Amino acid sequence: MKFNIEKPNTELKESLRHKIDFKTKPIGSLGILEDLAIQIGCIQNSLSPELKNPTIMVFAADHGIALDGVSPYPQEVTWQMVANFLNGGAAINVFSRQNGIDIKIIDAGVNHDFDKNSGVINAKIDYGTKSYLSQAAMSQDQFEHALKQGADLIEKIHHNGCNIIGFGEMGIGNTSSAAILLHYFTNLDLRECVGRGTGWNDEGLKKKFEILSKAISNYKTENTVENILTHFGGFEIVMIVGAMLKAAELKMIILVDGFIISSALLAASKINSTVLDYCIYTHKSNESGHKHMLECLNARAILDLEMRLGEGTGVAVAYPLIESAVNFLNQMASFEDAGVSNSDKVTAS
Amino acid sequence: MKFNIEKPNTELKESLRHKIDFKTKPIGSLGILEDLAIQIGCIQNSLSPELKNPTIMVFAADHGIALDGVSPYPQEVTWQMVANFLNGGAAINVFSRQNGIDIKIIDAGVNHDFDKNSGVINAKIDYGTKSYLSQAAMSQDQFEHALKQGADLIEKIHHNGCNIIGFGEMGIGNTSSAAILLHYFTNLDLRECVGRGTGWNDEGLKKKFEILSKAISNYKTENTVENILTHFGGFEIVMIVGAMLKAAELKMIILVDGFIISSALLAASKINSTVLDYCIYTHKSNESGHKHMLECLNARAILDLEMRLGEGTGVAVAYPLIESAVNFLNQMASFEDAGVSNSDKVTAS
Repeated sequence: MKFNIEKPNTELKESLRHKIDFKTKPIGSLGILEDLAIQIGCIQNSLSPELKNPTIMVFAADHGIALDGVSPYPQEVTWQMVANFLNGGAAINVFSRQNGIDIKIIDAGVNHDFDKNSGVINAKIDYGTKSYLSQAAMSQDQFEHALKQGADLIEKIHHNGCNIIGFGEMGIGNTSSAAILLHYFTNLDLRECVGRGTGWNDEGLKKKFEILSKAISNYKTENTVENILTHFGGFEIVMIVGAMLKAAELKMIILVDGFIISSALLAASKINSTVLDYCIYTHKSNESGHKHMLECLNARAILDLEMRLGEGTGVAVAYPLIESAVNFLNQMASFEDAGVSNSDKVTAS
Repeated sequence: MKFNIEKPNTELKESLRHKIDFKTKPIGSLGILEDLAIQIGCIQNSLSPELKNPTIMVFAADHGIALDGVSPYPQEVTWQMVANFLNGGAAINVFSRQNGIDIKIIDAGVNHDFDKNSGVINAKIDYGTKSYLSQAAMSQDQFEHALKQGADLIEKIHHNGCNIIGFGEMGIGNTSSAAILLHYFTNLDLRECVGRGTGWNDEGLKKKFEILSKAISNYKTENTVENILTHFGGFEIVMIVGAMLKAAELKMIILVDGFIISSALLAASKINSTVLDYCIYTHKSNESGHKHMLECLNARAILDLEMRLGEGTGVAVAYPLIESAVNFLNQMASFEDAGVSNSDKVTAS
């Protein structure tokens, strides 16, 4: 699958900076919000950008490796939490509702059959991946299919008027996949990549590390992005890779959540690095490997609230700050409009 | 003036923790939002706290020291910015509007007469303070009056149903007052306390430091909180001290903004340290001295966005995160409600 991603129009930076510097405030005093306003203006090629139909897509899937004991939670929690999303009782529901964000729940490969009227978007590739302890998690065909499903879903959401998209996930065992992707895509020692996930104690963390070490030592294929994703990926992760690349192609703003979503972005950036220009990093997760991911992505996250819940909750709680960036750019008065005296420094420049 | 501040009911902590730990999420995975939920629950003595009529009070006043050259902006900017607030064109207007926060603009002592129909709350003590380069900024009477005005204004807002109050300020020259308060209340070297304010270059910063050094060396009175505030305070700062102490007495949640507001809190905490139990620190300002203040207050700020605009903008942009803390506590399903299997660790506890 090919993705044709253009760079945002960075020629607009100077005009955006000028507009911001004549707002009624000291130069640079809105900090990161000013950087966000400039990035969003360049992406939308506009001095007055707009956020339309903000949406979070929550991709859910099961992981064969979960049955080997990498998580303290049983695999059934994946579908039970999807049901919780559909009933509106999860954290992602609460925060999205609060902040006016639409959420879409996608069955990318959960080991459960959902009712047709449940509200889930059915994009199921299979009833969970195989355990990559001894074989590839998915087939080549499944990989291609998942990538295309992600892209197709984004296309539909974009068609319905959304220009800012966040990604979330649910899948017992998926911090293991993400840790291995981090390891392969950055050459970081596996020990630095593996974290406590949903809440392992020291013993559990050790067991998780040993299982993943073994999985890696059993992997003999060539280290291409596609091979690594096929072997160690989850269906939700691959689908998010496809969705991110298509979203960038469509010039949508991409809101990046924590550890799992950033692992998908690492993969996407290996396929086409221009995707990164469309990304806003909403939070630094407390899952230990996320700080390494952000470093590798040369990213600064908006929030650092020691959250590690997943589901896209970092995106959902950070969203009002992104709105603030756009709102000050569009709504604040300039010195001239407001009849406020400027400092010598500004008037002289 | 006496303030009778009771401690929040910390006996509720355990029940709040229990309620949080049985929500459908890994233990502790909402990080700082969980801490906020517990603090707010204890303040309101409730397992289901509510945020009512969130309000930001923006206190504005002029400073005699501004005429000695501590700021790159002329003094008239204070009243011009107040007019901008009243017209809805400033950053604080944009962010408060976005996040459903009511704002009150208070003339604590601006060197300007506002129209009676302008919408400003008239609590003017005088047309700005005197320069503390060679004399006290205000009289003892003015100090007492300002403290009481702050308390009275809070009482009225509380009476109208508000239980969460943020503070903001406007006053050309007020980072100088705040720096000196920081110096006296923490014994930190003045050089560490003085920052670039609205945007001094190195030369301007040096000049500001020299002026403030001279002001301090001319000060011979005993170092009581009241004396320091009377000599170096601004009318807005003293009014905020009174407002904070009364807000804590009324068990309101206090949202602390950046450098100026934290200097008022430092002073308030020297009068009655229990005020601190009611405070949420919304952001770490980029004004250099603020990090020292937060350290002295043993405070962790929610946001670090390199903002340094004042007006209460840190409070306004952080507010949705405080709402998120209360919302997850009230709205998220428990494992039992949602029929989600818990990890062994949780069910065993």
